[in-house]
Amino acid sequence: MNALLTDLYQLTMAAGYFEAGKCRDIASFELFVRRLPANRNFLVAAGLEQAAGYLTGLRFSGGEIAYLRGLPQFARAGADFFDYLARFRFTGDADAVPEGTPVFAGEPLLRIRAPLIEAQIPETYLLATIGFQTLIATKAARIVAAAGGRAVVEFGTRRAHSPEAGVLAGRAAYIGGCAGTSNVLAGYRYGIPVFGTAAHSWVQAFSSEAEAFERLQKLLGPSTIYLIDTYDTLEGARKAARLGPPLWGVRLDSGNLVVLSREVRRILDQSGLSGAKIMATGDLNEHKILELCAAGAPIDSFGVGTDLATSADAPNLGAVYKLVELEEAGARRYTAKFSADKSTVPGAKQVFRYQARDEIALASEARGRDAEPLLRPVLRGGQLVEPLPDAHAARRRAQDSLARLPKAMHSLFEAKDPYPVEYSAALLQLLAALRHNGSGGGG
Amino acid sequence: MNALLTDLYQLTMAAGYFEAGKCRDIASFELFVRRLPANRNFLVAAGLEQAAGYLTGLRFSGGEIAYLRGLPQFARAGADFFDYLARFRFTGDADAVPEGTPVFAGEPLLRIRAPLIEAQIPETYLLATIGFQTLIATKAARIVAAAGGRAVVEFGTRRAHSPEAGVLAGRAAYIGGCAGTSNVLAGYRYGIPVFGTAAHSWVQAFSSEAEAFERLQKLLGPSTIYLIDTYDTLEGARKAARLGPPLWGVRLDSGNLVVLSREVRRILDQSGLSGAKIMATGDLNEHKILELCAAGAPIDSFGVGTDLATSADAPNLGAVYKLVELEEAGARRYTAKFSADKSTVPGAKQVFRYQARDEIALASEARGRDAEPLLRPVLRGGQLVEPLPDAHAARRRAQDSLARLPKAMHSLFEAKDPYPVEYSAALLQLLAALRHNGSGGGG
Repeated sequence: MNALLTDLYQLTMAAGYFEAGKCRDIASFELFVRRLPANRNFLVAAGLEQAAGYLTGLRFSGGEIAYLRGLPQFARAGADFFDYLARFRFTGDADAVPEGTPVFAGEPLLRIRAPLIEAQIPETYLLATIGFQTLIATKAARIVAAAGGRAVVEFGTRRAHSPEAGVLAGRAAYIGGCAGTSNVLAGYRYGIPVFGTAAHSWVQAFSSEAEAFERLQKLLGPSTIYLIDTYDTLEGARKAARLGPPLWGVRLDSGNLVVLSREVRRILDQSGLSGAKIMATGDLNEHKILELCAAGAPIDSFGVGTDLATSADAPNLGAVYKLVELEEAGARRYTAKFSADKSTVPGAKQVFRYQARDEIALASEARGRDAEPLLRPVLRGGQLVEPLPDAHAARRRAQDSLARLPKAMHSLFEAKDPYPVEYSAALLQLLAALRHNGSGGGG
Repeated sequence: MNALLTDLYQLTMAAGYFEAGKCRDIASFELFVRRLPANRNFLVAAGLEQAAGYLTGLRFSGGEIAYLRGLPQFARAGADFFDYLARFRFTGDADAVPEGTPVFAGEPLLRIRAPLIEAQIPETYLLATIGFQTLIATKAARIVAAAGGRAVVEFGTRRAHSPEAGVLAGRAAYIGGCAGTSNVLAGYRYGIPVFGTAAHSWVQAFSSEAEAFERLQKLLGPSTIYLIDTYDTLEGARKAARLGPPLWGVRLDSGNLVVLSREVRRILDQSGLSGAKIMATGDLNEHKILELCAAGAPIDSFGVGTDLATSADAPNLGAVYKLVELEEAGARRYTAKFSADKSTVPGAKQVFRYQARDEIALASEARGRDAEPLLRPVLRGGQLVEPLPDAHAARRRAQDSLARLPKAMHSLFEAKDPYPVEYSAALLQLLAALRHNGSGGGG
């Protein structure tokens, strides 16, 4: 499935490698980010579960192969190649950083070692699925940090880049620290907590706001959240207060949220509803939430949509997938690229995490117990080594490891000093040797 | 299918409407954009084919219903409601602006008239699918305009917000005027022309650049595009020139594209390859392309990835879906919202397009032959009225109608005067009456 969900050149290169007899060359590719997006001091890795599912399920259907055969770019490819595609499976190895792990520029999130064609075809899909979920998990971590312990719920499917992006945004936002999502399919597929309130159209659909509120309470009981700004926010709060328990709380979606949340809080408290919560929504992001919290607005939770589901301030990650080693007929060749702004570092790598620094080393290097190897075996011979941690485990991992990062990393702006990441001596030596030989090649 | 791909509140509201006996109320919702994104003077409507496919295929599976029953928010919903979901079909009407049509702020792209619950549940999916594709088709139109007749190919799947977003971005970019996409699945599913070259890893995988080029030419023949910047761009151009025909041309992916394209052009011409084309790629967008064209760089086509597939300068559209009419037991009620920044206009609407202006009127109004009604019947009673125009027809429509827009609308910046769009007298009268009664309600 999904074998055509790639760039055409991956498939023409596959045909070319096949014709050139390079089917048995073994390639190692690494997926990483050269520079962190603006105002980010770390990324939260996410998307591995979908990446692994893609690799293990990668197949070309008969219809897909027939389509390829009809393209002008495949007019000179032999019948053997299409037979090869019909039998195609990903039989390689994958090592990856577990979802929920903070990573930094230059650190591989995923390493693929496989026959050249099998390693090349997945590039596009792997970048899109890991790149997008990492982007959103990272954005969520910023927003959750700004909320300072108040719950944040992801509400952005309607503004996501396609409905399916909305499902994955819900998953990634949860990994990044959100309490849950409004996306029901993310709940159904991944077991993520789902939340919701009611829309303005609910209030409009009844002849009075009071009737709309009564109906909602009857249905939702202790889960009831009244949206109180349809007509007049304070009047809406009074109506909610008059209905009394059971309720979870109220939602504010417009106006001056600092002023309104204080007045609504007073109305609820005066009616003995000090347990009722206030949720705020409406084009929020980490900066607005920080301002609300700094102003002491009595808001208990935030719903964040557009800015979270599209990572609006930095809507792409610039992840790349680069060839770092090639084994041809038993001979290993390291590859790198030395151009100023697009350089790559050769060799299959491991990232070792120490107390307060990372080391990028060759995968063949070993370290002591104080060093946690971040990349772990995921696939061997195309098979899952063990079930992957689910979104819940990934979220816990993110929570734990983000708490251990230096405080300066949690700034919403670029920290004066980046997190310390250094290359191992062996890796630097390999790089120097390759640079000396001038044999690194492109990337 | 995909019935859970929505916000939870759509389904809790559905349960609430069901319990309140509002199953037979008929609602009209409209999907529109309140304000155009920054620096846009128009939008190119796209995504209708996927929206219609969603509506006609909308079903709840047994597993999905069982999941909903287990959620705390449905603990008080009756068994009748879940039986209703099991039988659920979209049985309503849809009217929409054909894909490829330029639209402006306030103009409905889609109008749904259906039993309240059936109209409410699809909100999230419709917004995400039409919003995203319209966003990308619009971005593509900007880039294509900047390229001034040179071909633009969409190359952005790897940076799209999930792999599926990449497929839809390829489709939408084609509608917006791109010559095609690198996304093979977009070609397979929608018949869109697919293009590709080769990656730097292709050059690296062979022992020399010359061998890599020979292999590529052998495979691709007249479709061959050499990527010539892996080691040294001019040396790469000379190697390509030495190989001679057949080839399509060369691709530049880095460096000073103005200088390099001139020198590469000279090398090709001196080798008698004046028919060979030059393609430029590498973090391009409409502004960089405009600069290259203004500088007279001899570039024949552009490949645009990240900025196009994520509409990076304006990564969301802010589309909304608002209740405009409600028919309860035969009585029609118009709904609107009067708040300063989130106002809506009541009543089911039609957009009439005249020579150089638009009029937003009530759907019940009629106009003469000089007025083209933009919203056309798509679904009646849940069934397609006729097959929808495909992406090719949508692209032609965009091309023709964009060419008819005033030149000022094609600026990459906000035009001094927006395109003239006015409300009909009848619509203004209805709005005034509703405002007078104060009965508009929320939105």
